[in-house]
Amino acid sequence: MSANSPTAYLVVRPNITNGILIGTPAAFGNIVVIDDALTVGPDEKSEVIGNAQGLWVSTGKNFPSLTVYLDFGFTQGEFNGSSISVFSRNPIAQTERQLAVVGGRGKFEMAKGVANLKTIFVNYTSGNALVEYHVTVIHY
Amino acid sequence: MSANSPTAYLVVRPNITNGILIGTPAAFGNIVVIDDALTVGPDEKSEVIGNAQGLWVSTGKNFPSLTVYLDFGFTQGEFNGSSISVFSRNPIAQTERQLAVVGGRGKFEMAKGVANLKTIFVNYTSGNALVEYHVTVIHY
Amino acid sequence: MSANSPTAYLVVRPNITNGILIGTPAAFGNIVVIDDALTVGPDEKSEVIGNAQGLWVSTGKNFPSLTVYLDFGFTQGEFNGSSISVFSRNPIAQTERQLAVVGGRGKFEMAKGVANLKTIFVNYTSGNALVEYHVTVIHY
Repeated sequence: MSANSPTAYLVVRPNITNGILIGTPAAFGNIVVIDDALTVGPDEKSEVIGNAQGLWVSTGKNFPSLTVYLDFGFTQGEFNGSSISVFSRNPIAQTERQLAVVGGRGKFEMAKGVANLKTIFVNYTSGNALVEYHVTVIHY
Repeated sequence: MSANSPTAYLVVRPNITNGILIGTPAAFGNIVVIDDALTVGPDEKSEVIGNAQGLWVSTGKNFPSLTVYLDFGFTQGEFNGSSISVFSRNPIAQTERQLAVVGGRGKFEMAKGVANLKTIFVNYTSGNALVEYHVTVIHY
Repeated sequence: MSANSPTAYLVVRPNITNGILIGTPAAFGNIVVIDDALTVGPDEKSEVIGNAQGLWVSTGKNFPSLTVYLDFGFTQGEFNGSSISVFSRNPIAQTERQLAVVGGRGKFEMAKGVANLKTIFVNYTSGNALVEYHVTVIHY
Protein backbone atom coordinates (compact mmCIF):
# COMPACT_ATOMS: atom_id res chain seq x y z
CA MET A 1 0.00 0.00 0.00
CA SER A 2 3.05 2.26 -0.10
CA ALA A 3 3.88 1.92 -3.81
CA ASN A 4 3.89 4.93 -6.15
CA SER A 5 0.72 3.60 -7.72
CA PRO A 6 -0.83 1.57 -4.91
CA THR A 7 -3.43 -1.03 -5.76
CA ALA A 8 -4.99 -1.15 -2.30
CA TYR A 9 -6.68 1.80 -0.64
CA LEU A 10 -7.68 2.18 2.97
CA VAL A 11 -11.14 3.67 2.45
CA VAL A 12 -12.56 3.40 5.98
CA ARG A 13 -10.44 4.07 9.07
CA PRO A 14 -12.66 4.33 12.15
CA ASN A 15 -11.42 6.17 15.20
CA ILE A 16 -10.93 3.10 17.38
CA THR A 17 -8.25 3.58 19.99
CA ASN A 18 -8.12 0.20 21.67
CA GLY A 19 -7.26 -3.11 19.99
CA ILE A 20 -4.22 -4.26 18.05
CA LEU A 21 -2.15 -2.85 15.19
CA ILE A 22 -3.42 0.70 15.80
CA GLY A 23 -2.07 3.06 13.17
CA THR A 24 -1.40 0.34 10.59
CA PRO A 25 -3.51 -0.66 7.58
CA ALA A 26 -4.56 -3.79 9.52
CA ALA A 27 -5.96 -1.92 12.56
CA PHE A 28 -9.29 -3.36 13.69
CA GLY A 29 -12.23 -1.90 11.79
CA ASN A 30 -10.31 -0.74 8.72
CA ILE A 31 -11.83 -1.44 5.30
CA VAL A 32 -9.57 -1.67 2.25
CA VAL A 33 -10.56 -1.75 -1.45
CA ILE A 34 -8.11 -3.60 -3.69
CA ASP A 35 -7.33 -4.19 -7.36
CA ASP A 36 -4.14 -6.28 -7.02
CA ALA A 37 -2.24 -7.97 -9.83
CA LEU A 38 -2.09 -11.77 -9.93
CA THR A 39 1.18 -13.04 -11.36
CA VAL A 40 2.44 -16.51 -12.24
CA GLY A 41 5.34 -16.30 -9.78
CA PRO A 42 6.51 -14.16 -6.85
CA ASP A 43 8.75 -11.93 -8.99
CA GLU A 44 7.11 -8.55 -9.77
CA LYS A 45 8.27 -9.00 -13.38
CA SER A 46 6.48 -12.33 -13.56
CA GLU A 47 3.62 -12.53 -16.08
CA VAL A 48 0.38 -10.87 -14.97
CA ILE A 49 -2.51 -13.30 -15.47
CA GLY A 50 -5.30 -11.46 -13.71
CA ASN A 51 -6.30 -9.42 -10.71
CA ALA A 52 -7.95 -9.72 -7.32
CA GLN A 53 -10.67 -7.15 -6.76
CA GLY A 54 -12.87 -6.48 -3.76
CA LEU A 55 -12.69 -5.68 -0.09
CA TRP A 56 -10.79 -6.82 2.91
CA VAL A 57 -11.67 -5.80 6.42
CA SER A 58 -9.54 -6.00 9.54
CA THR A 59 -11.77 -8.00 11.90
CA GLY A 60 -9.47 -9.37 14.60
CA LYS A 61 -9.93 -7.28 17.73
CA ASN A 62 -7.37 -9.17 19.82
CA PHE A 63 -5.14 -10.82 17.21
CA PRO A 64 -4.37 -10.02 13.55
CA SER A 65 -7.06 -11.37 11.25
CA LEU A 66 -8.82 -10.16 8.13
CA THR A 67 -12.10 -11.10 6.58
CA VAL A 68 -11.72 -11.05 2.78
CA TYR A 69 -14.38 -10.57 0.09
CA LEU A 70 -12.41 -10.95 -3.13
CA ASP A 71 -13.02 -11.88 -6.75
CA PHE A 72 -9.95 -13.40 -8.44
CA GLY A 73 -10.32 -12.84 -12.17
CA PHE A 74 -8.18 -14.07 -15.04
CA THR A 75 -7.22 -11.89 -18.01
CA GLN A 76 -5.01 -14.41 -19.86
CA GLY A 77 -5.10 -18.00 -21.01
CA GLU A 78 -7.67 -20.72 -20.60
CA PHE A 79 -9.60 -18.92 -17.86
CA ASN A 80 -9.61 -15.46 -19.44
CA GLY A 81 -12.85 -13.72 -18.43
CA SER A 82 -13.63 -16.21 -15.66
CA SER A 83 -13.29 -15.57 -11.95
CA ILE A 84 -13.67 -17.15 -8.51
CA SER A 85 -15.33 -15.66 -5.43
CA VAL A 86 -13.35 -15.93 -2.19
CA PHE A 87 -14.97 -15.11 1.14
CA SER A 88 -13.77 -16.10 4.61
CA ARG A 89 -11.52 -15.07 7.42
CA ASN A 90 -7.82 -14.84 6.62
CA PRO A 91 -5.71 -15.45 9.75
CA ILE A 92 -2.75 -13.44 8.50
CA ALA A 93 -0.54 -14.22 11.50
CA GLN A 94 -0.27 -17.83 10.26
CA THR A 95 2.27 -18.20 7.46
CA GLU A 96 0.19 -20.96 5.87
CA ARG A 97 -3.58 -20.68 5.92
CA GLN A 98 -6.75 -21.45 4.02
CA LEU A 99 -9.53 -19.31 2.54
CA ALA A 100 -12.96 -20.45 1.33
CA VAL A 101 -13.86 -20.32 -2.39
CA VAL A 102 -17.65 -19.87 -2.40
CA GLY A 103 -18.47 -19.56 -6.10
CA GLY A 104 -17.40 -18.46 -9.54
CA ARG A 105 -18.22 -17.12 -13.00
CA GLY A 106 -17.59 -18.33 -16.53
CA LYS A 107 -15.53 -21.50 -16.48
CA PHE A 108 -15.78 -21.46 -12.70
CA GLU A 109 -19.59 -21.46 -12.76
CA MET A 110 -20.82 -22.98 -9.46
CA ALA A 111 -17.28 -23.53 -8.22
CA LYS A 112 -16.55 -24.43 -4.62
CA GLY A 113 -13.19 -25.02 -3.05
CA VAL A 114 -10.30 -23.64 -1.09
CA ALA A 115 -7.34 -21.35 -1.56
CA ASN A 116 -4.18 -22.32 0.32
CA LEU A 117 -2.02 -19.29 1.04
CA LYS A 118 1.62 -18.93 2.00
CA THR A 119 3.05 -15.58 3.02
CA ILE A 120 6.37 -14.87 1.27
CA PHE A 121 6.75 -11.38 2.67
CA VAL A 122 4.67 -9.09 4.85
CA ASN A 123 5.18 -5.67 6.41
CA TYR A 124 2.30 -4.75 8.73
CA THR A 125 3.43 -1.14 9.02
CA SER A 126 3.45 -0.33 5.30
CA GLY A 127 0.72 -2.84 4.50
CA ASN A 128 2.77 -4.41 1.73
CA ALA A 129 2.66 -8.18 1.34
CA LEU A 130 3.46 -10.89 -1.15
CA VAL A 131 1.39 -14.03 -0.82
CA GLU A 132 1.44 -17.28 -2.79
CA TYR A 133 -1.96 -18.80 -3.64
CA HIS A 134 -2.75 -22.39 -4.52
CA VAL A 135 -6.40 -22.70 -5.42
CA THR A 136 -8.33 -25.98 -5.64
CA VAL A 137 -11.89 -25.86 -6.91
CA ILE A 138 -14.58 -28.25 -8.03
CA HIS A 139 -16.55 -26.81 -10.95
CA TYR A 140 -18.79 -28.10 -13.71
CA MET B 1 -28.90 7.45 -7.67
CA SER B 2 -30.37 10.79 -8.72
CA ALA B 3 -34.06 10.04 -8.07
CA ASN B 4 -36.11 12.01 -5.53
CA SER B 5 -36.06 8.97 -3.27
CA PRO B 6 -32.89 7.18 -4.30
CA THR B 7 -32.47 3.53 -3.40
CA ALA B 8 -28.67 3.52 -3.63
CA TYR B 9 -26.41 5.58 -1.41
CA LEU B 10 -22.74 6.31 -1.85
CA VAL B 11 -21.61 5.77 1.73
CA VAL B 12 -17.83 5.70 1.27
CA ARG B 13 -16.04 8.05 -1.15
CA PRO B 14 -12.29 7.93 -0.53
CA ASN B 15 -10.16 10.84 -1.67
CA ILE B 16 -8.44 8.99 -4.53
CA THR B 17 -7.35 11.32 -7.29
CA ASN B 18 -5.93 8.93 -9.85
CA GLY B 19 -7.84 6.17 -11.61
CA ILE B 20 -10.93 6.18 -13.76
CA LEU B 21 -14.42 7.66 -13.45
CA ILE B 22 -13.28 10.19 -10.81
CA GLY B 23 -16.22 12.20 -9.54
CA THR B 24 -18.82 9.61 -10.52
CA PRO B 25 -20.55 7.03 -8.31
CA ALA B 26 -18.36 4.36 -9.96
CA ALA B 27 -15.00 5.98 -9.08
CA PHE B 28 -12.49 3.44 -7.78
CA GLY B 29 -12.83 2.80 -4.06
CA ASN B 30 -16.44 3.96 -3.69
CA ILE B 31 -18.77 1.81 -1.60
CA VAL B 32 -22.52 1.98 -2.24
CA VAL B 33 -25.36 0.53 -0.12
CA ILE B 34 -28.50 -0.39 -2.07
CA ASP B 35 -32.12 -1.41 -1.55
CA ASP B 36 -33.29 -1.55 -5.18
CA ALA B 37 -36.67 -2.73 -6.41
CA LEU B 38 -36.85 -5.89 -8.53
CA THR B 39 -39.63 -5.73 -11.11
CA VAL B 40 -41.01 -8.26 -13.57
CA GLY B 41 -40.15 -6.10 -16.57
CA PRO B 42 -38.07 -3.06 -17.44
CA ASP B 43 -40.97 -0.60 -17.09
CA GLU B 44 -40.88 1.27 -13.75
CA LYS B 45 -44.63 0.59 -13.46
CA SER B 46 -43.99 -3.14 -13.85
CA GLU B 47 -44.96 -5.28 -10.82
CA VAL B 48 -42.45 -5.17 -7.94
CA ILE B 49 -41.60 -8.73 -6.89
CA GLY B 50 -38.74 -8.09 -4.50
CA ASN B 51 -35.61 -6.13 -3.82
CA ALA B 52 -31.84 -6.35 -4.07
CA GLN B 53 -30.08 -5.35 -0.86
CA GLY B 54 -26.41 -5.13 -0.02
CA LEU B 55 -23.20 -3.48 -1.14
CA TRP B 56 -21.41 -2.80 -4.34
CA VAL B 57 -17.87 -1.53 -4.50
CA SER B 58 -16.08 0.08 -7.40
CA THR B 59 -12.98 -2.10 -7.72
CA GLY B 60 -11.63 -1.50 -11.23
CA LYS B 61 -8.63 0.78 -10.99
CA ASN B 62 -7.96 0.92 -14.73
CA PHE B 63 -11.29 -0.03 -16.27
CA PRO B 64 -14.89 0.15 -15.00
CA SER B 65 -15.72 -2.84 -12.82
CA LEU B 66 -17.69 -3.41 -9.65
CA THR B 67 -17.58 -6.15 -7.09
CA VAL B 68 -21.12 -6.84 -5.87
CA TYR B 69 -22.30 -8.36 -2.58
CA LEU B 70 -26.08 -8.51 -3.01
CA ASP B 71 -29.01 -10.47 -1.64
CA PHE B 72 -31.93 -10.68 -4.10
CA GLY B 73 -35.09 -11.29 -2.07
CA PHE B 74 -38.62 -11.99 -3.23
CA THR B 75 -41.69 -10.42 -1.64
CA GLN B 76 -44.36 -11.92 -3.92
CA GLY B 77 -45.38 -15.27 -5.35
CA GLU B 78 -43.85 -18.71 -5.03
CA PHE B 79 -40.52 -17.46 -3.68
CA ASN B 80 -41.89 -14.92 -1.20
CA GLY B 81 -39.51 -14.76 1.78
CA SER B 82 -36.70 -16.57 -0.05
CA SER B 83 -33.54 -14.96 -1.42
CA ILE B 84 -30.32 -15.65 -3.30
CA SER B 85 -26.81 -14.44 -2.45
CA VAL B 86 -24.83 -12.95 -5.34
CA PHE B 87 -21.12 -12.22 -4.97
CA SER B 88 -18.59 -11.64 -7.76
CA ARG B 89 -17.11 -9.02 -9.97
CA ASN B 90 -19.52 -7.24 -12.31
CA PRO B 91 -17.68 -6.01 -15.43
CA ILE B 92 -20.16 -3.19 -16.08
CA ALA B 93 -18.51 -2.06 -19.32
CA GLN B 94 -19.74 -5.26 -20.99
CA THR B 95 -23.40 -5.03 -22.02
CA GLU B 96 -23.86 -8.75 -21.31
CA ARG B 97 -22.11 -10.30 -18.36
CA GLN B 98 -22.35 -12.94 -15.66
CA LEU B 99 -22.38 -12.83 -11.86
CA ALA B 100 -21.90 -15.72 -9.42
CA VAL B 101 -24.79 -16.94 -7.23
CA VAL B 102 -23.08 -18.37 -4.15
CA GLY B 103 -25.99 -19.40 -1.93
CA GLY B 104 -29.55 -18.78 -0.81
CA ARG B 105 -32.23 -18.88 1.85
CA GLY B 106 -35.67 -20.48 2.11
CA LYS B 107 -36.61 -22.12 -1.18
CA PHE B 108 -33.10 -21.32 -2.42
CA GLU B 109 -31.42 -23.16 0.45
CA MET B 110 -27.92 -24.25 -0.69
CA ALA B 111 -28.44 -22.70 -4.13
CA LYS B 112 -25.58 -22.23 -6.56
CA GLY B 113 -25.72 -20.74 -10.02
CA VAL B 114 -25.27 -17.72 -12.20
CA ALA B 115 -27.05 -14.48 -13.00
CA ASN B 116 -26.82 -13.33 -16.60
CA LEU B 117 -27.14 -9.56 -16.90
CA LYS B 118 -27.96 -7.29 -19.79
CA THR B 119 -27.72 -3.53 -19.46
CA ILE B 120 -30.78 -1.77 -20.89
CA PHE B 121 -29.69 1.71 -19.85
CA VAL B 122 -26.79 3.18 -17.90
CA ASN B 123 -25.61 6.69 -17.05
CA TYR B 124 -22.25 6.64 -15.30
CA THR B 125 -22.49 10.31 -14.31
CA SER B 126 -25.79 10.09 -12.46
CA GLY B 127 -25.26 6.48 -11.45
CA ASN B 128 -28.69 5.45 -12.75
CA ALA B 129 -29.00 2.14 -14.55
CA LEU B 130 -31.58 -0.36 -15.65
CA VAL B 131 -30.36 -3.94 -15.90
CA GLU B 132 -32.15 -7.13 -16.91
CA TYR B 133 -31.34 -10.26 -14.85
CA HIS B 134 -31.79 -13.88 -15.83
CA VAL B 135 -30.91 -16.12 -12.93
CA THR B 136 -30.24 -19.85 -13.16
CA VAL B 137 -29.74 -21.77 -9.93
CA ILE B 138 -29.52 -25.34 -8.77
CA HIS B 139 -31.22 -25.79 -5.40
CA TYR B 140 -32.70 -28.63 -3.37
CA MET C 1 -22.48 -2.00 20.93
CA SER C 2 -22.76 -0.13 24.23
CA ALA C 3 -20.53 -2.40 26.36
CA ASN C 4 -17.34 -1.13 28.00
CA SER C 5 -15.36 -3.11 25.48
CA PRO C 6 -17.71 -3.34 22.51
CA THR C 7 -17.13 -5.99 19.90
CA ALA C 8 -19.04 -4.23 17.12
CA TYR C 9 -18.08 -0.86 15.68
CA LEU C 10 -20.16 1.39 13.49
CA VAL C 11 -17.47 2.36 10.98
CA VAL C 12 -19.60 4.00 8.28
CA ARG C 13 -22.56 6.23 9.14
CA PRO C 14 -23.73 8.08 6.02
CA ASN C 15 -25.71 11.29 6.41
CA ILE C 16 -29.03 9.86 5.26
CA THR C 17 -31.97 11.71 6.74
CA ASN C 18 -34.92 9.76 5.41
CA GLY C 19 -35.66 6.09 6.03
CA ILE C 20 -36.14 4.09 9.20
CA LEU C 21 -34.24 3.74 12.48
CA ILE C 22 -32.42 7.06 11.96
CA GLY C 23 -29.93 7.64 14.75
CA THR C 24 -29.62 3.97 15.71
CA PRO C 25 -26.88 1.48 14.75
CA ALA C 26 -29.36 -0.11 12.31
CA ALA C 27 -30.10 3.08 10.32
CA PHE C 28 -30.10 2.45 6.57
CA GLY C 29 -26.63 2.65 5.05
CA ASN C 30 -24.66 1.99 8.23
CA ILE C 31 -21.74 -0.43 8.02
CA VAL C 32 -20.60 -2.26 11.16
CA VAL C 33 -17.42 -4.32 11.69
CA ILE C 34 -17.73 -7.07 14.31
CA ASP C 35 -15.63 -9.53 16.27
CA ASP C 36 -18.34 -11.10 18.47
CA ALA C 37 -17.91 -14.03 20.85
CA LEU C 38 -19.72 -17.28 20.11
CA THR C 39 -20.75 -19.11 23.25
CA VAL C 40 -22.32 -22.51 23.87
CA GLY C 41 -25.39 -21.00 25.54
CA PRO C 42 -27.11 -17.63 25.95
CA ASP C 43 -25.47 -16.88 29.32
CA GLU C 44 -22.53 -14.44 29.01
CA LYS C 45 -20.57 -16.77 31.32
CA SER C 46 -21.20 -19.70 28.98
CA GLU C 47 -18.09 -21.24 27.38
CA VAL C 48 -16.65 -19.23 24.46
CA ILE C 49 -16.11 -21.57 21.52
CA GLY C 50 -15.26 -19.07 18.78
CA ASN C 51 -16.09 -15.74 17.24
CA ALA C 52 -18.02 -14.18 14.39
CA GLN C 53 -15.96 -11.73 12.35
CA GLY C 54 -16.89 -9.57 9.40
CA LEU C 55 -19.34 -6.91 8.31
CA TRP C 56 -23.00 -6.26 8.58
CA VAL C 57 -24.75 -3.52 6.68
CA SER C 58 -28.15 -2.01 7.32
CA THR C 59 -29.86 -2.44 3.96
CA GLY C 60 -33.59 -2.13 4.62
CA LYS C 61 -34.73 1.29 3.50
CA ASN C 62 -38.36 0.85 4.52
CA PHE C 63 -38.23 -1.93 7.12
CA PRO C 64 -35.44 -3.22 9.41
CA SER C 65 -33.14 -5.62 7.59
CA LEU C 66 -29.43 -6.27 7.53
CA THR C 67 -27.21 -7.92 4.97
CA VAL C 68 -24.51 -9.91 6.78
CA TYR C 69 -21.04 -10.95 5.57
CA LEU C 70 -19.71 -12.99 8.49
CA ASP C 71 -17.17 -15.72 9.12
CA PHE C 72 -18.03 -17.90 12.14
CA GLY C 73 -14.78 -19.43 13.39
CA PHE C 74 -14.22 -21.99 16.11
CA THR C 75 -11.40 -21.76 18.65
CA GLN C 76 -12.23 -24.85 20.71
CA GLY C 77 -13.04 -28.52 20.23
CA GLU C 78 -13.50 -30.61 17.13
CA PHE C 79 -13.78 -27.62 14.76
CA ASN C 80 -10.93 -25.54 16.21
CA GLY C 81 -9.37 -23.56 13.35
CA SER C 82 -12.29 -24.17 10.99
CA SER C 83 -14.93 -21.63 10.00
CA ILE C 84 -18.08 -21.12 7.95
CA SER C 85 -18.91 -18.21 5.64
CA VAL C 86 -22.39 -16.70 6.08
CA PHE C 87 -23.76 -14.22 3.54
CA SER C 88 -27.37 -13.19 3.05
CA ARG C 89 -30.00 -10.80 4.20
CA ASN C 90 -30.99 -11.02 7.86
CA PRO C 91 -34.59 -9.85 8.35
CA ILE C 92 -34.03 -8.82 11.98
CA ALA C 93 -37.67 -7.84 12.59
CA GLN C 94 -38.60 -11.54 12.44
CA THR C 95 -37.85 -13.35 15.71
CA GLU C 96 -37.04 -16.55 13.80
CA ARG C 97 -35.21 -16.30 10.49
CA GLN C 98 -32.70 -18.00 8.22
CA LEU C 99 -29.30 -17.00 6.83
CA ALA C 100 -27.36 -18.61 3.97
CA VAL C 101 -24.11 -20.50 4.64
CA VAL C 102 -22.15 -20.16 1.39
CA GLY C 103 -18.85 -21.88 2.17
CA GLY C 104 -16.24 -22.81 4.72
CA ARG C 105 -12.64 -23.52 5.66
CA GLY C 106 -10.85 -26.45 7.28
CA LYS C 107 -13.35 -29.10 8.35
CA PHE C 108 -16.05 -27.02 6.65
CA GLU C 109 -14.28 -27.07 3.28
CA MET C 110 -16.89 -26.59 0.53
CA ALA C 111 -19.71 -26.37 3.08
CA LYS C 112 -23.17 -25.17 2.13
CA GLY C 113 -26.16 -24.82 4.38
CA VAL C 114 -28.30 -22.59 6.50
CA ALA C 115 -28.20 -20.91 9.88
CA ASN C 116 -31.51 -20.69 11.73
CA LEU C 117 -31.60 -17.74 14.10
CA LYS C 118 -33.81 -16.91 17.05
CA THR C 119 -33.61 -13.54 18.75
CA ILE C 120 -33.47 -13.88 22.54
CA PHE C 121 -33.02 -10.17 23.17
CA VAL C 122 -32.61 -7.05 21.03
CA ASN C 123 -32.38 -3.33 21.71
CA TYR C 124 -32.35 -1.32 18.48
CA THR C 125 -31.35 1.90 20.26
CA SER C 126 -28.19 0.57 21.90
CA GLY C 127 -27.53 -1.98 19.19
CA ASN C 128 -27.14 -4.81 21.70
CA ALA C 129 -28.63 -8.18 20.84
CA LEU C 130 -28.42 -11.80 21.86
CA VAL C 131 -29.24 -14.29 19.12
CA GLU C 132 -29.34 -18.09 19.15
CA TYR C 133 -27.88 -19.83 16.07
CA HIS C 134 -28.56 -23.35 14.85
CA VAL C 135 -26.39 -24.11 11.88
CA THR C 136 -26.91 -27.01 9.47
CA VAL C 137 -24.27 -27.60 6.81
CA ILE C 138 -23.35 -30.22 4.28
CA HIS C 139 -19.60 -30.60 4.00
CA TYR C 140 -17.14 -33.20 2.81
